[in-house]
Amino acid sequence: MSDLQAVLDLIDSEQENALDRLCNLLRVESISTDSAYADECITAADWLVEDLISIGFDAKRHDTPGHPMVVGKLNAGADKPHYLFYGHYDVQPVDPLELWNSPPFDPQIEDTANGKVIRARGASDDKGQLMTFVEACRAWKQISGSLPANITVFFEGEEESGSPSLIPFMKDNRELLKADIAMVCDTGMWDSNTPAISTMLRGMVGEELTITGPSLDLHSGMYGGPAMNPIRVLTRILADVHDDTGRITLDGFYEGVTEPSSQIKQQWASLEHDEDAFLTDVGLSTPAGEDGYTVLEQIWSRPTFDVNGIWGGYTGEGFKTVLPSQASAKVSFRLVGEQNANKIQQTFQQYVRDKLPPDCSVEFKSKDAAGATVMPVDAPEFARAHAALSDEWENEAVYAGCGGSIPVVGHIKDILDMDSLLVGFGLEDDAIHSPNEKYNVKSFHKGTRSWARILEALTRP
Amino acid sequence: MSDLQAVLDLIDSEQENALDRLCNLLRVESISTDSAYADECITAADWLVEDLISIGFDAKRHDTPGHPMVVGKLNAGADKPHYLFYGHYDVQPVDPLELWNSPPFDPQIEDTANGKVIRARGASDDKGQLMTFVEACRAWKQISGSLPANITVFFEGEEESGSPSLIPFMKDNRELLKADIAMVCDTGMWDSNTPAISTMLRGMVGEELTITGPSLDLHSGMYGGPAMNPIRVLTRILADVHDDTGRITLDGFYEGVTEPSSQIKQQWASLEHDEDAFLTDVGLSTPAGEDGYTVLEQIWSRPTFDVNGIWGGYTGEGFKTVLPSQASAKVSFRLVGEQNANKIQQTFQQYVRDKLPPDCSVEFKSKDAAGATVMPVDAPEFARAHAALSDEWENEAVYAGCGGSIPVVGHIKDILDMDSLLVGFGLEDDAIHSPNEKYNVKSFHKGTRSWARILEALTRP
Repeated sequence: MSDLQAVLDLIDSEQENALDRLCNLLRVESISTDSAYADECITAADWLVEDLISIGFDAKRHDTPGHPMVVGKLNAGADKPHYLFYGHYDVQPVDPLELWNSPPFDPQIEDTANGKVIRARGASDDKGQLMTFVEACRAWKQISGSLPANITVFFEGEEESGSPSLIPFMKDNRELLKADIAMVCDTGMWDSNTPAISTMLRGMVGEELTITGPSLDLHSGMYGGPAMNPIRVLTRILADVHDDTGRITLDGFYEGVTEPSSQIKQQWASLEHDEDAFLTDVGLSTPAGEDGYTVLEQIWSRPTFDVNGIWGGYTGEGFKTVLPSQASAKVSFRLVGEQNANKIQQTFQQYVRDKLPPDCSVEFKSKDAAGATVMPVDAPEFARAHAALSDEWENEAVYAGCGGSIPVVGHIKDILDMDSLLVGFGLEDDAIHSPNEKYNVKSFHKGTRSWARILEALTRP
Repeated sequence: MSDLQAVLDLIDSEQENALDRLCNLLRVESISTDSAYADECITAADWLVEDLISIGFDAKRHDTPGHPMVVGKLNAGADKPHYLFYGHYDVQPVDPLELWNSPPFDPQIEDTANGKVIRARGASDDKGQLMTFVEACRAWKQISGSLPANITVFFEGEEESGSPSLIPFMKDNRELLKADIAMVCDTGMWDSNTPAISTMLRGMVGEELTITGPSLDLHSGMYGGPAMNPIRVLTRILADVHDDTGRITLDGFYEGVTEPSSQIKQQWASLEHDEDAFLTDVGLSTPAGEDGYTVLEQIWSRPTFDVNGIWGGYTGEGFKTVLPSQASAKVSFRLVGEQNANKIQQTFQQYVRDKLPPDCSVEFKSKDAAGATVMPVDAPEFARAHAALSDEWENEAVYAGCGGSIPVVGHIKDILDMDSLLVGFGLEDDAIHSPNEKYNVKSFHKGTRSWARILEALTRP
């Protein structure tokens, strides 16, 4: 007979201690995009290694040219299946800091209208989520003396900064990481009562571009007119990526974009997604994506282009009538279906070069390009996980799309030849990547219970 | 007989002391655009008051809601004409600081291939220029015991930050400031050997605009597509201000733009302006202004639109796939002829509002709007000043246009009903508003001598 009930009971009685552990991890300022925080990333990795060892894992920090990886193994026996669990301990920058109601790295347990929440940078993305799995392992080990399956945990510290070390590390450590299936906890619930398994992920192409015009900053009175302003060039180039209907104008951009099957579309329609509430929650009312698609379709099945940052010229207090030498932007595409990420990256760079006027030049800093991923939902693990989630939440789980990009899922497929089971407990109002990020205590607690159930369900004879 | 020769001799023998005095003023970090430097602006004003008093002026600091004004008077007698001299003691910000070869507020006298220069922020714009007039007065007073004319000097500290206090102060102090004609030293030479009187100034409209879309920063994975990105809106709006030929698309924008007379065009053509060198010096080769105009015509007689600064989203190290809540820009128009600055300001704001998609709003922070100015070059003062300049530089002075905007010249006309004699000794390579600003020692010295001559020439019976 399974120990599942005892494991779930232990998770309930250990809830306060589990929260304390998570808060300790949240205090580490492991911002990966800013090299000033590199030591904090090492601290977070070391914290995880120690915590895994305390459970019984054989765990190690693996240094890389960037931030370290953490790999831990706990063997259950050659007759058991083998799962790889992936998460990331790095977090987004916290700016604008002045919009936070409490310091981002001083986690608070707060009562809200929707129950208790853990308020901190990384609470939801992804420290709280990855700890749901760690806590489930801890409880199983304590009750049974072992885990239901052979488990390899794999945590990286560069997910929010383009994962420059991830592909080399995975290629160099195929044997260390190879398993039957991967589990990833970096996605969300359908709503606060309905768990979800994500079956599609959009891919991403990220670029930073800097356009240079004059060789130095000029006075717009002395040179305005004859001297080309690189901000003018940049705004024209970025504006023309979209046409008036919201479609992207790059040559061949929509190659590989497929319409979801009518079955999938029906399932999505049956979810009765509240478009108005989705938009109203963030101060909007009108879907801004391509004409002719629902909001869910725009997020789950349509590719996008966004400018994530733009800067140039004088941006301080007051005015300065400068005609700047340079202007820059960070941009990203979200990809779907079979769109070729590398090709789109090249097409965008060529598009920019073709639109440069005389005397202007461009430099690119590329982020990893990764295509979209579609999961094999008819594999037996998906049905078992679906049942386990439905049991825990007493509500039928949803097979959902996902507008975000988790490039590691593509790398797990390409490098390790494994599919990924994407289960997560984030909510739309978690404010990930924004000030005042939070994770519901309920997500954390029932998330831990969900993984305990999934491990049992997948390994049941 | 005039004391002119003795005055010029004294200016020559006093050259080192004059440079010392200028360097003392240049050490004051009187950046007006940044409120952190407000005390430095007061220090600069006080320094000028003391220096004027040491010459014999009755001078006072006049505090305003912004940075103070300095007004000094030295009477020569009721039978003499009365001139108002205007300059500004505030300077541009110094960023990017890392591009300066020496600290911007530690003035250096450097030997260069083109002779000695004074290297510091404000050396040319406008501390060095305004001190040419002050030093000319000092020499006249010392030799003659009085000045050739009644002189009122008027220095402001907000020229680089939109002069918010200027119009109220001028309206409240008409009697204090009223004179026969104004003299302004904030323009340039035609070339390093040819002095110039500026006879046209472009006007300016400056606006800062902030576009708000979603009520908070969003994750572009979760919201990319349905959520409108304000950077996309801003780039479209800014890009569409120009058409493909470089013309500005705002309704009625070209109303009041007149073609220069054929006589003026002939004079400009006779200057044999070296377009290639003008552009090559700043890393460019192709005039970017409207088709069908020479570079000089583009700068002196055509209106422009430039984005002077743009910012939004994540601009730090690395990537952040944020879909920001806001995006902002600082923009300016240069105006010519009879273009109506207030009308263009309103037209631009309406253009922006008309292009806003649903769910987006805009806020404006307006800078003073001022139209272009055209001087009465046939007035007798202009011919006399022209002769004095030609004598000093042993080269015939040029009546030139000017691409920059000196809004005070419009205010002097509108509020005090006075024309302005615009004489300055700046050079194109002075790098005003850029790192490593300088002023040639020759500009400073012969500029002082030029004003000494002009004061004599204008008051000669």
